[in-house]
Amino acid sequence: MSFGTVAIIGLGLQGGSIGLAVQEHLPGTQTTGYDLSPAHRARAAERALVHRVCETPAEAVENADLVIFCVPPGVMGLAAEQVRDALPARALVSDVGSSKQAISKALGEALPDHMVIPAHPVAGTENSGPDAGFAHLFRNRWCIVTPAARTDLVKLSELVGFWEALGANVEIMTPEHHDLVLAVTSHVPHLIAYTIVGTASDLEDVTQGEVIKYSAGGFRDFTRIAASDPTMWRDVFLSNKEAVLTMLQRFTEDLTALQRAIRVGDGQALFDQFTRTRAIRRSIIEEGQDDSRPDFGRGDHEAGVDAAE
Amino acid sequence: MSFGTVAIIGLGLQGGSIGLAVQEHLPGTQTTGYDLSPAHRARAAERALVHRVCETPAEAVENADLVIFCVPPGVMGLAAEQVRDALPARALVSDVGSSKQAISKALGEALPDHMVIPAHPVAGTENSGPDAGFAHLFRNRWCIVTPAARTDLVKLSELVGFWEALGANVEIMTPEHHDLVLAVTSHVPHLIAYTIVGTASDLEDVTQGEVIKYSAGGFRDFTRIAASDPTMWRDVFLSNKEAVLTMLQRFTEDLTALQRAIRVGDGQALFDQFTRTRAIRRSIIEEGQDDSRPDFGRGDHEAGVDAAE
Ligand SMILES: NC(=O)c1ccc[n+]([C@@H]2O[C@H](COP(=O)([O-])OP(=O)(O)OC[C@H]3O[C@@H](n4cnc5c(N)ncnc54)[C@H](OP(=O)(O)O)[C@@H]3O)[C@@H](O)[C@H]2O)c1
Ligand SMILES: NC(=O)c1ccc[n+]([C@@H]2O[C@H](COP(=O)([O-])OP(=O)(O)OC[C@H]3O[C@@H](n4cnc5c(N)ncnc54)[C@H](OP(=O)(O)O)[C@@H]3O)[C@@H](O)[C@H]2O)c1
Repeated sequence: MSFGTVAIIGLGLQGGSIGLAVQEHLPGTQTTGYDLSPAHRARAAERALVHRVCETPAEAVENADLVIFCVPPGVMGLAAEQVRDALPARALVSDVGSSKQAISKALGEALPDHMVIPAHPVAGTENSGPDAGFAHLFRNRWCIVTPAARTDLVKLSELVGFWEALGANVEIMTPEHHDLVLAVTSHVPHLIAYTIVGTASDLEDVTQGEVIKYSAGGFRDFTRIAASDPTMWRDVFLSNKEAVLTMLQRFTEDLTALQRAIRVGDGQALFDQFTRTRAIRRSIIEEGQDDSRPDFGRGDHEAGVDAAE
Repeated sequence: MSFGTVAIIGLGLQGGSIGLAVQEHLPGTQTTGYDLSPAHRARAAERALVHRVCETPAEAVENADLVIFCVPPGVMGLAAEQVRDALPARALVSDVGSSKQAISKALGEALPDHMVIPAHPVAGTENSGPDAGFAHLFRNRWCIVTPAARTDLVKLSELVGFWEALGANVEIMTPEHHDLVLAVTSHVPHLIAYTIVGTASDLEDVTQGEVIKYSAGGFRDFTRIAASDPTMWRDVFLSNKEAVLTMLQRFTEDLTALQRAIRVGDGQALFDQFTRTRAIRRSIIEEGQDDSRPDFGRGDHEAGVDAAE
């Protein structure tokens, strides 16, 4: 059994992609949506991201069986409060936020009388807003669902089925474990990328023009990540502070060890470390989470581009 | 006037690409090549990376007007010594090494009676060996040429013309400045990528399987860089120690500042930093050194793939 009506709050990359994916994969499901920004609502209606773009959050959720909050992590609680009085008692509450402990707590406090099952599709791009979404975003990507210890198993299986219908593979884990895993696979990599791009633009001896010109040596891959939405990422770091700081500590220790190897000229230590990391790359390609093709297989997941094989 | 015969020592990604590019763009030029590894020599001959694959370095250079060393940075001096007695006095000596001060010194010491003009094409992939090269590697990429203060201007202009014929844009700078620029645009990014991939595979609380599974959250872009050749990168760090350690110091300071902002919950500082770094990404795309297309425009530069526009 699937959800009859799905309400999407926040019609950016994630919300828009869900709206389009539901229309493609679940033709029997009605979609409604709301975005705080009137310009985004207008654009969402133009692109038909959902069947009906509403003028208030209350209107968007009034008939919902599932409401998914697709707003920045820091305003999840606020957005949830705005639908409290209008949301049917039967409706399942979920979200797509990139951190889970803080958001689970915020949603639970804002909607204490509803069943809340948070989720996080590990699928994104560096783009945001109502033009960024596309129906294939979730295809062959993982969606992590993080129910509380006591949850409604029927609703949980409906939510799992929903994400699978959108093309995702679903994994269930605790919010605590999610936050640790994502700190290392996503949050710390983003922080590092933001940092090095900042460092490079502040140098006295190397101009910004030079940094841009010679970026093909490795730097450009970091700038793509460091072009991600500032609001969302500020919220991610503030809402997953503890796990991020823990992982950052480990990273710094490891960096210090390599720095020392360079300083003392310990080529063997460098060689060993660089050999080890190659194996991980191979596994990622084997698991289909990246690709050795020139486009890294991103064509399979991007707007309007169909799988090449 | 172009070089009549070009000898390539080391037939991996760079050497192979030069060989193929010369055959495509400079049909009047003869190419010879040598690689230390018999298996690589055999494969190079099969792929016809150069017109003639030789069994000894002496044979490869005996008629050369230009010899380009395309071996790992740490063995440039050794490879140059092996051709000393056979290399014609008129021949220009160059290389493609990723660091320039140490390599300039090594080549100059090994071949004191020859004109040496080092170079570094800022173009690469994570692949290496005789199967990795392709003719379009240098197209619309920068090649940095680092002559000594007193150099042969005729030979310099011939070398510049050579790289331009292969599709590259050429920039001239001192070896010192090159090493500083590349430390920030390439060497430190690689070190950071190697570090975080290592950190992620050593955790007790997060399995390697999880790291691989959820790598689409940002981590996978780092693993691609961290799959680069261990020998080459060991040599890069050892041969550009000073600039790398300087830049690493700056990076660490900046990371500490962001870490502190997370710890004290300073959302504004995070937001400001993340906004600043977006602009750099835009400039890189405008300059054509990366691309907002799904494949990042890499199709334009990869093996056997032609420009999409
Ligand atoms: N981007 C990724 O790669 C990615 C991946 C996985 C999960 N996520 C998570 O997905 C969520 C949304 O991210 P996104 O990338 O889709 O961001 P986005 O493209 O910026 O979309 C968020 C939308 O929500 C709107 N909004 C803000 N506050 C609102 C409110 N109170 N009520 C209704 N709408 C509101 C925003 O409008 P304004 O722009 O006018 O504020 C914007 O249109 C975040 O929690 C993020 O952690 C993102
Ligand atoms: N990869 C990049 O992205 C990139 C970019 C710009 C510049 N560079 C520079 O280009 C140079 C070559 O790198 P690459 O990526 O082309 O490496 P590669 O694919 O590994 O090729 C190097 C080749 O040289 C051979 N070799 C080693 N010692 C030799 C010797 N003494 N005489 C003759 N051949 C020898 C190697 O054989 P074995 O494998 O059997 O040792 C290998 O086939 C390096 O100095 C690097 O810094 C690389």
